[in-house]
Amino acid sequence: MDKVLRVGIAGLGTVGASVARLLGAQAKDLAARTGRAIRIAGVSARDPGRDRGVDLSGAAFFADPVALARSEDIDVFVELIGGEEGAARASVTAALQAGKSVVTANKALLAKHGLELAQLAEQTHAALAFEASVAGGIPIVKTLREGLAGNSVARVYGILNGTCNYILSRMELEGLSFAECLADAQKLGYAEADPTFDIGGFDTAHKLAILASLAFGVKLDADNISIEGIQDISLADIKAAAELGFRIKLLGVAQRTEHGVEQRVHPTMAPLSSPIAQVMGVTNAVTVDADAVNELTLVGPGAGGMATASAVVADIADIARGIRSAPFGLPVAHLAAAEKSPMQRHEGGYYIRLSARNHIGAAAAIAQRMAERDISLESIVQRRPGSDDSVVPVVLVTYATTETSVREALAAIVADGHIAEKPQVIRIERD
Amino acid sequence: MDKVLRVGIAGLGTVGASVARLLGAQAKDLAARTGRAIRIAGVSARDPGRDRGVDLSGAAFFADPVALARSEDIDVFVELIGGEEGAARASVTAALQAGKSVVTANKALLAKHGLELAQLAEQTHAALAFEASVAGGIPIVKTLREGLAGNSVARVYGILNGTCNYILSRMELEGLSFAECLADAQKLGYAEADPTFDIGGFDTAHKLAILASLAFGVKLDADNISIEGIQDISLADIKAAAELGFRIKLLGVAQRTEHGVEQRVHPTMAPLSSPIAQVMGVTNAVTVDADAVNELTLVGPGAGGMATASAVVADIADIARGIRSAPFGLPVAHLAAAEKSPMQRHEGGYYIRLSARNHIGAAAAIAQRMAERDISLESIVQRRPGSDDSVVPVVLVTYATTETSVREALAAIVADGHIAEKPQVIRIERD
Repeated sequence: MDKVLRVGIAGLGTVGASVARLLGAQAKDLAARTGRAIRIAGVSARDPGRDRGVDLSGAAFFADPVALARSEDIDVFVELIGGEEGAARASVTAALQAGKSVVTANKALLAKHGLELAQLAEQTHAALAFEASVAGGIPIVKTLREGLAGNSVARVYGILNGTCNYILSRMELEGLSFAECLADAQKLGYAEADPTFDIGGFDTAHKLAILASLAFGVKLDADNISIEGIQDISLADIKAAAELGFRIKLLGVAQRTEHGVEQRVHPTMAPLSSPIAQVMGVTNAVTVDADAVNELTLVGPGAGGMATASAVVADIADIARGIRSAPFGLPVAHLAAAEKSPMQRHEGGYYIRLSARNHIGAAAAIAQRMAERDISLESIVQRRPGSDDSVVPVVLVTYATTETSVREALAAIVADGHIAEKPQVIRIERD
Repeated sequence: MDKVLRVGIAGLGTVGASVARLLGAQAKDLAARTGRAIRIAGVSARDPGRDRGVDLSGAAFFADPVALARSEDIDVFVELIGGEEGAARASVTAALQAGKSVVTANKALLAKHGLELAQLAEQTHAALAFEASVAGGIPIVKTLREGLAGNSVARVYGILNGTCNYILSRMELEGLSFAECLADAQKLGYAEADPTFDIGGFDTAHKLAILASLAFGVKLDADNISIEGIQDISLADIKAAAELGFRIKLLGVAQRTEHGVEQRVHPTMAPLSSPIAQVMGVTNAVTVDADAVNELTLVGPGAGGMATASAVVADIADIARGIRSAPFGLPVAHLAAAEKSPMQRHEGGYYIRLSARNHIGAAAAIAQRMAERDISLESIVQRRPGSDDSVVPVVLVTYATTETSVREALAAIVADGHIAEKPQVIRIERD
């Protein structure tokens, strides 16, 4: 290899331009830290002429990112195009095939094709680095891959989507509805015009698949993640959570169970005293429960051009230093098949909010149905009815039980005709 | 190098035994992750025969840790003896001189001799790794050295001593005095019989010197840290802090100023909304403010055999993988001399609690002395006198000002004779 590390950047949006800016600003320091000068040798973007506030005149321009990926003039290919197929996949594959190390922020690509790309990287002895793909500027990939190498991880969970956390935080702090907060998030650029990908939990699931593979040494298994979004969270739930000592967070959770690795994304009741419950706004956080370190939490920016670029540049620096870890910690041949623990087997506490019809005996019947499934109740709060006095809000918190028991009990309660609306069910995640 | 990485462990106390246990339990996984089997080839301890609950029969015993450090049969020397001189210093020096990589948890040794040891490591191309020396199981050394390589750090601060945080937490949560909490901490084994090293802030200062060098690329400068402990914090301060929206934490703070790097350890008013204020009990936390990543906080166990061993094993795994970063991020020749920013130049907000004599005009005179030094007051709270009505508690919170101004104003107030006790001054640290 050449003494100078020659970088090719494909995609010059906010993150790409920020990477170029950081590599320029930190050039002297990075050279001293890594022992090699790092130079942007080539770039690829849709609009070559746009002013990005950074001098790229020393870099060759490639209209085709695949050509950049294959270029003899680069050592590292930085993919910031996005998307799980198309140019992103083609160019990353081309770079790895050519034995060039790859740095990417593309969680969708990794969640879908990560295993295949890791295998390719191993074959050609290239690095495949993706710190920026999960939780932006938080070094959670490095922490799981290297920092916790001596640990057996029991659970990893986190706030991995800033849009959802922003919406939930504003609902609580300002007493606004989900719809109002979503509209504001869209105005501020925190949410897309079609917010399904964020709000529905799919973005969190992509990131969770990557974390689960790193934490448990299993093959990526994004298709088997149980996913619920935050679209049905109401202000009533948020207020009830606070009264019960919880805060609602959209968490991605992967945990080792006796049935395999359980991977799930859903709104969660997090104890107010837990570090993750304190995290408000667009900030992200990840907690790792492991045997040696017990509980470790990392809190930081989950998105934004500069924070994401921080992670990309750290990956480039590692490559310059010659660090070559297996992309998912273990070599692909050692990654176990992800034995999926089905959601029905999930065990934990549950928050259940019911709109009970104001009948004599409704509460007793509800309690009876829970008892029939051996569900113990930690608390029951029945409020005075609102303006519509035919309906009584009832909030139940259960001790640990199974998803199946809760679903069966609720089906029986609904069939009994005591409920005016679909029950709200939110799982409790203890720290 | 041999395919097997042969480890020598000097010091088989709680941490040493935990390292041996983790290396055993994770042996298969570590070999897969690093590409090399890791084997304990030699050990050294004061009492060879003691049962440590771990099988060390495969390891050669060395009465002299220096002999272990020099042994031809080890590749990595793990120093868990402790102390800044004596056997620890002699054996680490011997190992590095022999070109063997060193892993140590010894903050005192590093704070005092880190620079000299880093230089030696560079000369012999050995690694010198010390993740366990700061904040136990929290991977803050790796984060600063590698994870934030693209950033320019503005400030790093943290709760680095679990004993102090335990005492301050219990004082607040249970309304106990400092003396009562210290006695309990000693009973629980969180504090030594002579607690000065923890309580007085000296342990925090050792760790801060290491963090500052990593964060700012400066030479270690433990002797120039301004240090105040928590021994004078009263329940009155803790209650006043809560009323003002703060929580008192003993922080180590290193920050870049126009006058150089300011390094200080002192009780601090942290805003209740900051991540660091949420950290209770023996838990540690470190926050890094940097240009690209903005604010990153790591929270986890700061001590304990297994948590510390987690960090030691991660360092051993990095060495097995062949990772050789400069110990303090930059090569020693690139580390700048630490230009000390004196405490008198410190700028920030101040909390000041005075016991004013119940004279007509006392409050006006106090306010006048502050105004003469251009100190603006954000709030003044004067309480009704207690049982002794000759003394009135007054709490002032200033806007940003300088240490010199505050000290001069207080000296004038004391000289005026309006004050019954020594004023309490606690610096405010904004996140």
